[in-house]
Amino acid sequence: MNGKIEVGVLGATGTVGQEFIAQLANHPWFTVSWIGASKRSAGSKYRDATQWRLSSPRPDRVADMVVDSVKPGRAPGLLFSGLDSSVAGKVEDEFAKAGHIVVSNARNHRMDPVVPLVIPEVNADHLQLLSEQAESKGWPGGIVTNPNCSTVVLAMALAPLRQFGLSKVIVSTLQAISGGGYPGVASLDIVGNVLPVIPGEEAKIETETKKILGRFIKTRIEPHAVTVSASTTRVPVINGHTEIIAVSLESNPGPRELVGALRSFSGQPQESVLPSAPKQPILYLEDEDRPQPRLDAGRDNGMAVCVGRLRACPVLDYKFVALGHNTIRGAAGAAVLNAELLKENRVVQ
Amino acid sequence: MNGKIEVGVLGATGTVGQEFIAQLANHPWFTVSWIGASKRSAGSKYRDATQWRLSSPRPDRVADMVVDSVKPGRAPGLLFSGLDSSVAGKVEDEFAKAGHIVVSNARNHRMDPVVPLVIPEVNADHLQLLSEQAESKGWPGGIVTNPNCSTVVLAMALAPLRQFGLSKVIVSTLQAISGGGYPGVASLDIVGNVLPVIPGEEAKIETETKKILGRFIKTRIEPHAVTVSASTTRVPVINGHTEIIAVSLESNPGPRELVGALRSFSGQPQESVLPSAPKQPILYLEDEDRPQPRLDAGRDNGMAVCVGRLRACPVLDYKFVALGHNTIRGAAGAAVLNAELLKENRVVQ
Amino acid sequence: MNGKIEVGVLGATGTVGQEFIAQLANHPWFTVSWIGASKRSAGSKYRDATQWRLSSPRPDRVADMVVDSVKPGRAPGLLFSGLDSSVAGKVEDEFAKAGHIVVSNARNHRMDPVVPLVIPEVNADHLQLLSEQAESKGWPGGIVTNPNCSTVVLAMALAPLRQFGLSKVIVSTLQAISGGGYPGVASLDIVGNVLPVIPGEEAKIETETKKILGRFIKTRIEPHAVTVSASTTRVPVINGHTEIIAVSLESNPGPRELVGALRSFSGQPQESVLPSAPKQPILYLEDEDRPQPRLDAGRDNGMAVCVGRLRACPVLDYKFVALGHNTIRGAAGAAVLNAELLKENRVVQ
Amino acid sequence: MNGKIEVGVLGATGTVGQEFIAQLANHPWFTVSWIGASKRSAGSKYRDATQWRLSSPRPDRVADMVVDSVKPGRAPGLLFSGLDSSVAGKVEDEFAKAGHIVVSNARNHRMDPVVPLVIPEVNADHLQLLSEQAESKGWPGGIVTNPNCSTVVLAMALAPLRQFGLSKVIVSTLQAISGGGYPGVASLDIVGNVLPVIPGEEAKIETETKKILGRFIKTRIEPHAVTVSASTTRVPVINGHTEIIAVSLESNPGPRELVGALRSFSGQPQESVLPSAPKQPILYLEDEDRPQPRLDAGRDNGMAVCVGRLRACPVLDYKFVALGHNTIRGAAGAAVLNAELLKENRVVQ
Repeated sequence: MNGKIEVGVLGATGTVGQEFIAQLANHPWFTVSWIGASKRSAGSKYRDATQWRLSSPRPDRVADMVVDSVKPGRAPGLLFSGLDSSVAGKVEDEFAKAGHIVVSNARNHRMDPVVPLVIPEVNADHLQLLSEQAESKGWPGGIVTNPNCSTVVLAMALAPLRQFGLSKVIVSTLQAISGGGYPGVASLDIVGNVLPVIPGEEAKIETETKKILGRFIKTRIEPHAVTVSASTTRVPVINGHTEIIAVSLESNPGPRELVGALRSFSGQPQESVLPSAPKQPILYLEDEDRPQPRLDAGRDNGMAVCVGRLRACPVLDYKFVALGHNTIRGAAGAAVLNAELLKENRVVQ
Repeated sequence: MNGKIEVGVLGATGTVGQEFIAQLANHPWFTVSWIGASKRSAGSKYRDATQWRLSSPRPDRVADMVVDSVKPGRAPGLLFSGLDSSVAGKVEDEFAKAGHIVVSNARNHRMDPVVPLVIPEVNADHLQLLSEQAESKGWPGGIVTNPNCSTVVLAMALAPLRQFGLSKVIVSTLQAISGGGYPGVASLDIVGNVLPVIPGEEAKIETETKKILGRFIKTRIEPHAVTVSASTTRVPVINGHTEIIAVSLESNPGPRELVGALRSFSGQPQESVLPSAPKQPILYLEDEDRPQPRLDAGRDNGMAVCVGRLRACPVLDYKFVALGHNTIRGAAGAAVLNAELLKENRVVQ
Repeated sequence: MNGKIEVGVLGATGTVGQEFIAQLANHPWFTVSWIGASKRSAGSKYRDATQWRLSSPRPDRVADMVVDSVKPGRAPGLLFSGLDSSVAGKVEDEFAKAGHIVVSNARNHRMDPVVPLVIPEVNADHLQLLSEQAESKGWPGGIVTNPNCSTVVLAMALAPLRQFGLSKVIVSTLQAISGGGYPGVASLDIVGNVLPVIPGEEAKIETETKKILGRFIKTRIEPHAVTVSASTTRVPVINGHTEIIAVSLESNPGPRELVGALRSFSGQPQESVLPSAPKQPILYLEDEDRPQPRLDAGRDNGMAVCVGRLRACPVLDYKFVALGHNTIRGAAGAAVLNAELLKENRVVQ
Repeated sequence: MNGKIEVGVLGATGTVGQEFIAQLANHPWFTVSWIGASKRSAGSKYRDATQWRLSSPRPDRVADMVVDSVKPGRAPGLLFSGLDSSVAGKVEDEFAKAGHIVVSNARNHRMDPVVPLVIPEVNADHLQLLSEQAESKGWPGGIVTNPNCSTVVLAMALAPLRQFGLSKVIVSTLQAISGGGYPGVASLDIVGNVLPVIPGEEAKIETETKKILGRFIKTRIEPHAVTVSASTTRVPVINGHTEIIAVSLESNPGPRELVGALRSFSGQPQESVLPSAPKQPILYLEDEDRPQPRLDAGRDNGMAVCVGRLRACPVLDYKFVALGHNTIRGAAGAAVLNAELLKENRVVQ
């Protein structure tokens, strides 16, 4: 297959799985050669097993592939996992034991002390945990995870602020319905409405962020000292999580310094020009009424996080708005970028 | 007219004016005997001058009334103002000079040091400013205002917390489109979208709240010392502003104490059983997924504020969600309750 | 209980069941004394068994009742059925066999030749089928049904046109999401979207309408000769089905005659002033931009059907728009009105 | 400029104008060298004169151009007009008099007997009217128009059915809010709602369709004999007009024949492989729940019309659903394809 690396997708029929198929359709390095899903779908053609829910067309090549069950055996070495958290823990373990590298979007292993929770621009160095993982788990493969969709947006916006003594964060999220999967949120619950909670989400934001912003020290991650308080809501938006953020910064920077830090923020994906890397990971928008999910979530193929409205906060130090595409930068695109990072760093070959 | 007090509505054809007409349709104390609007409408029947935008039917009696211009002369003593802020300042002054009591929803006079900015349950005693107003302005009438729609929700939820040493507040609002008037927010801006700013709204919340929660001292209002930081957004909801609130409370209360204080909060409207008063001004909802604007904004005829999800905040002390009906509790209903308070306190007779 | 007739609700925890509870909360003739639901809920308090989804508050009296299983035994003589069609057929049969009168909103028995399919204003005389039903089924109870939610709106708008030689109808529906139950339509399918089909719905409209508009002849219903062609769609509206209707009328009436016929249409509910009867079953609205579901579905407590935009059709004879509240006039309110009709006609005592 | 043809955009700041700028950003044949708008904008940079409302980014090159007034003089020979109909008539005349070719999306000249109303796949031969236009108007330039956005979808779906004796059409539209321009439809009118009329739209559909499907005979267009009856509604969808269509076909074709005719439909844009031409102008979708505006309006860059649900109609002969992207296939993309056709046919060089 043109010298591309063969990859598989675990949970290929679900919403995240579909997004993986779409993101990988014309990928320069990877080609999908295997798809796995629950017993219900195994044995069927992908075309028949999936109710395609994306506005981008379903790639014909994959549509004709036969779905396998989620057992190691026929699967290639590199796997993307869009599995539901009810099964992801056990299944991903099995594949790692069998020698596969699993790049997972599931939440099950994110907070495992030996599993890297990676945003390539922020903490690529956390991949060093993989040796520790191999040793402590005693498996030939490995698991790398990306954060929860709302955490990605927050952690990217906060990463450039660490240098200013980031100490406290209060964030309120307005999250898109695609974050709830399919069928997910009932229309009667959200049309013309707001849901004031997303169960379990706040704890994820409050803990994952500290791990991502933390430092790798020899064999473990020292979590960042920042205290995060999250309130999550669901709003009738298709794609794009909007986050209202207030921060305390101990070094007392000026607003221009902050905007400069956001705009110049960059990491290994940009240096190595990884295929899915946005040119600028963070776009600071000047217009007072931006970012908006419908207009801005898709910036740079959905991989850029947009920030706007930076201004003084009378209670903490600054407040601003951040926005990211939850199924791309916050899920499938995040995992693909992680895989690109693994290849670039020769973890995958 | 059955011994009811005759009242007029300034700006009767606009969205707030229509809400006044609806709220007053079967009022036990007041009856609309005069309606005023811009020159364009003056001389027409209300029926013809107004594109009725409410789901409650347009009262037939008012539909047949002829719209007057907004000049004193034929207007009765008590007036409700739903005027646009571009004209409200000057017009309301004129009516007060001519001896009318103007109960206004417009923002123009809210922060005037001698104009009461009143939520009857919270600061009915601020009506004492009226003597100072009469003296300093030298007019026989008077102006009483109600807060901005998003301020009402916040100030009501905070009022019972003053006793616990309320010192800091961070609030993110998710505001309904009806708050923007008609035609107001363009559908292309809000369908499937979030607007990350409502111009001018944050300053109103940050200043009005301090005045409302403040103390009347002889001739003036001493603002409350609380620091408020507001971020406002618009969401595709018809009615009901949702507010995500975090607070610092210096006396270190427990959560049960707080819920008790919210639930038992009450004021003169409840003691005097004013016609528009909700039984309980604040409803604390136990279900984790409440309050929701579509299901809860209309509680107790839209006059109750709902609170839910009270829990510890890792950064400040507590966080919770509040919700109120922006065109009723936040606008027309607020003004009608103010007028009932004025009558009860014999300012209006 | 104040001399009211005790009634039960089958399927009380579902969306139609909840609407029944709400409609019957303050009913002058009926009082809910029994509620039945699936085994999963039986034995629990209604409060705990139900996630209340209506914006009107859940009646406290019913909230404390214990849910029974859907077996005859403790149930009162008159029952409202909001059962899902997967079980309604068998369960309703059992209750009829056990002597109960079942007023059903389920589709299962609607087209049974001996079961009346009734809209009280249109075909109250079809209740005469009940004797035939008792005889042919050999049971002491009976079943009366109301039409599908989209059929009600169409059949009511067509009923006054029968006198003009109604022969052909083409109808396109824009149906609200509440018609799909809960969780029903997934939000990802309908936010900012239209679904071009509602499976099974078109056949119901095309057949039920003919039965309702038909004539009772001795022991059976002679279906009306009209040919109906239906296309159904789902739109992101909470309540209110909008229908775009074109008709052929053989007697060549003028538009004023038609509007007159719609406006003066009336039936036994109006003559007998049944508690749930709207004053005028059909409201003809003059404004070109009406009816609209958000503004007009709730007219006369959701029991009136609104019609507007009557004009010549270049292909058939006339076209117009009709609108009705799908969960009230199209479901729970329809069944309650049927029960009132049964009591008025002494089928229920 | 790389040998590309220089073009201008009239009404460049409006929504259709913005769509033109986006469609032409990377066009292989055309390059925007001039932009004109109302006096209010003239003299400003495009960047400052325009509140960009598209989710695709505003092209930087055009952002820096200075807006001219809509007077001939500095404008290039080929112009795209996105002018509002209140001014388009007169302004387009002036430019044609001054020798420009105006490819217009405005409605003003569509029904002028000597102005071609063109969908390139359907009636490219109507361009022959241009000689007649030049003669009768006596101007050196010319005007070519594309249809109303809802007409395009209908006319394309009907074009392949002409061969079967197309005689009657009843169409109900569910139109997107972007069709109303900006600010256009008020959010309070459409969130959770349906508007049962789009003023003026039905007459456009009923007349434009006959002209487009008609035959060019020497010097004029003989309109097609089909009778069209249209009912239009607005729904809360961003992009994509859905149309529910019933047709009478005199030659009694079978459904497979019809699907075959839709699928094989093709015209000069496909033969000549014009840059904006979709591979297949009409995509027939097999899934019963398609087409859907959110998922399908963007097919083939928004230039394909999707058709689905073809089935027998009990009143006319067949019914089906059609969908097209209203601002691309129905507006800016339609005009750009018309311009490509003009160049291909050497009207523009």
